[in-house]
Amino acid sequence: MQQYELAVLPGDGIGNEVMPEALRVLDVIGANYGVRFDYRHFDWSCETYQSTGRMMPADGLDRLRDHDSILLGAVGWPGVPDHISLWGLLLPIRREFDQYVNLRPVRLLPGVTPPVRDKQPGDIDFWVVRENTEGEYSQLGGRQGEGTPNEMVLQTAAFTRRGTDRIMRYAFELARKLGKPHVTSATKSNGIYYSMPYWDERFAAISAEYPEITVDQDHIDILCARFVMSPERFDVVVASNLFGDILSDLGPGVTGTIGVAPSGNINPERTYPSTFEPVHGSAPDIAGRGIANPIGQIWSAAMMLDHLGLPEAGADVVRAIEQVLTDASAPRTPDLGGKATTEDLGKAIATAL
Amino acid sequence: MQQYELAVLPGDGIGNEVMPEALRVLDVIGANYGVRFDYRHFDWSCETYQSTGRMMPADGLDRLRDHDSILLGAVGWPGVPDHISLWGLLLPIRREFDQYVNLRPVRLLPGVTPPVRDKQPGDIDFWVVRENTEGEYSQLGGRQGEGTPNEMVLQTAAFTRRGTDRIMRYAFELARKLGKPHVTSATKSNGIYYSMPYWDERFAAISAEYPEITVDQDHIDILCARFVMSPERFDVVVASNLFGDILSDLGPGVTGTIGVAPSGNINPERTYPSTFEPVHGSAPDIAGRGIANPIGQIWSAAMMLDHLGLPEAGADVVRAIEQVLTDASAPRTPDLGGKATTEDLGKAIATAL
Ligand SMILES: CC(C)[C@H](C(=O)O)[C@@H](O)C(=O)O
Ligand SMILES: CC(C)[C@H](C(=O)O)[C@@H](O)C(=O)O
Repeated sequence: MQQYELAVLPGDGIGNEVMPEALRVLDVIGANYGVRFDYRHFDWSCETYQSTGRMMPADGLDRLRDHDSILLGAVGWPGVPDHISLWGLLLPIRREFDQYVNLRPVRLLPGVTPPVRDKQPGDIDFWVVRENTEGEYSQLGGRQGEGTPNEMVLQTAAFTRRGTDRIMRYAFELARKLGKPHVTSATKSNGIYYSMPYWDERFAAISAEYPEITVDQDHIDILCARFVMSPERFDVVVASNLFGDILSDLGPGVTGTIGVAPSGNINPERTYPSTFEPVHGSAPDIAGRGIANPIGQIWSAAMMLDHLGLPEAGADVVRAIEQVLTDASAPRTPDLGGKATTEDLGKAIATAL
Repeated sequence: MQQYELAVLPGDGIGNEVMPEALRVLDVIGANYGVRFDYRHFDWSCETYQSTGRMMPADGLDRLRDHDSILLGAVGWPGVPDHISLWGLLLPIRREFDQYVNLRPVRLLPGVTPPVRDKQPGDIDFWVVRENTEGEYSQLGGRQGEGTPNEMVLQTAAFTRRGTDRIMRYAFELARKLGKPHVTSATKSNGIYYSMPYWDERFAAISAEYPEITVDQDHIDILCARFVMSPERFDVVVASNLFGDILSDLGPGVTGTIGVAPSGNINPERTYPSTFEPVHGSAPDIAGRGIANPIGQIWSAAMMLDHLGLPEAGADVVRAIEQVLTDASAPRTPDLGGKATTEDLGKAIATAL
């Protein structure tokens, strides 16, 4: 029997509530497909930080290294500055395991009313391919003149040829694989003097390797506006770390799915484990009440199945989610206008499988 | 008679078509208010670059310096890389004249159908206050290993105490002046390690000077999503150069006014002239056909009137724009669903005054 070792990191807040539902669904998939998922649980979180001064043990990354994948809930909690919690756990995982692709679907789901008008499921269905290890998210920089009127902070973004080319190639390969004929590049070469003209240069070079795929590029300001005005025009959007972060929250904002959107932090070469996590955060406002929507975590598990080489199983899970969302009598958590609990909704999806 | 010396730079493409309509409106205002606007025309543009290798003459900035304000159309044209045209004209003006505030209204106008559902004029009415001289838009950086597989580009953002504090104070003063009780800060301190935590630190310090104004801060990713999901919650949003750029295109995208949104590049101390320009670009696709919508340019002139100390005149112009937009029999350019020319619409607004 095929076995998968999964590292399970619920993290903070509602991460702890939605994770069990993803595991519930994986157990059903395991039974259906005759495979086994073994879970190793890690309770690393802001609580760990508050008691130990570290988000994870010194050998934390080594302890994750040998898993087939990592399932992550949410990281961040009031009282621990975000840059401490994220650079102490989430971002080192992305970097150490060279998860250079952050992949996020933007899809209008049946049964969800989006904030934009006149759009039907099917109209909006594309992928944001975000660079996930370099670019604007950097620890290069510093401060001088602290506390004086001359205080100044520098922050340096780094774009390498290797890092830029490989994320662009991933985007083109994805477009090819999905039969989606168009790739859009997010840029800002009119304002950002060095990095973005370089980004454009590499986009032109890499796109020449894929003559059958049409391309365009938009500056990030107008691109964000177009996500709202004409989201149906996109197939695959490739973006730097920061721009991809923005676009992959904005996209689900437009489709009304921000609470349920999934993401994969992928090491395509499979040299290291990939991490799958919902786009939503730890939600301190509703944490502890058992009413968080588990779909983002479950959908992330579906992306993991795909990555593990079980694409039919992944598709089953997405179908089960869609089925529950369209079934008017199925349980709904408060964010979807209902009164169901996290567990009710998780069970309904598991049952639909 | 009060006289104002205005530098008029139509720039490229439709800039040349919409500018005359703004001057037409200003002439009417001059007559109504007994003031005189003198126009000095400058034809600096991408054409200048193509014939001289410079976007403006070497003493260009000096020739602008003594004007009361600058009215700008649009800069940029295919064949001239954007970073050349913008860093050759638009961005040096902003910096040399210390126009450290980029101010843009986000307003749902009567007669305009926005892409978001269930919103009425009045629901969405806020200001984006964007830092306009430092931050992510910098010429600090460079490339090494050009053409090799080790090629790498660095781009350094710079945030000074002076630059950060003054834009935040401007935002709080604006909130106070407009009687808008809430300021939102755009940040990304969970991912961007040095600059954004500093931004938050200064926001906390400056907000303490304005105890009557409530505040919050959102990471730019979720903030963009909230612009779509709940735009009615904002009063004044303060943001860095890049984040402000993104938000001030996204906002008008949400209200369906991207083609008509105005902006002011303001030197609040009035040591130097301020620049007023529409948010839209030179629109090569429709340039030369006389069908561009002139409202962005005219609305920008209204913001200029306000800055010049003629706020009633500015309010008159905004009212005239709204009147024409709500009058079903008034001319409409193609972007508004009609067949009118730029001149038809400009004349209608002038007549409404
Ligand atoms: C043209 C470009 C450099 C400019 C900017 O990003 O500042 C424009 O988008 C704007 O917002 O005025
Ligand atoms: C929490 C934060 C550092 C993170 C990011 O910006 O990458 C999150 O927004 C995401 O998109 O996964």
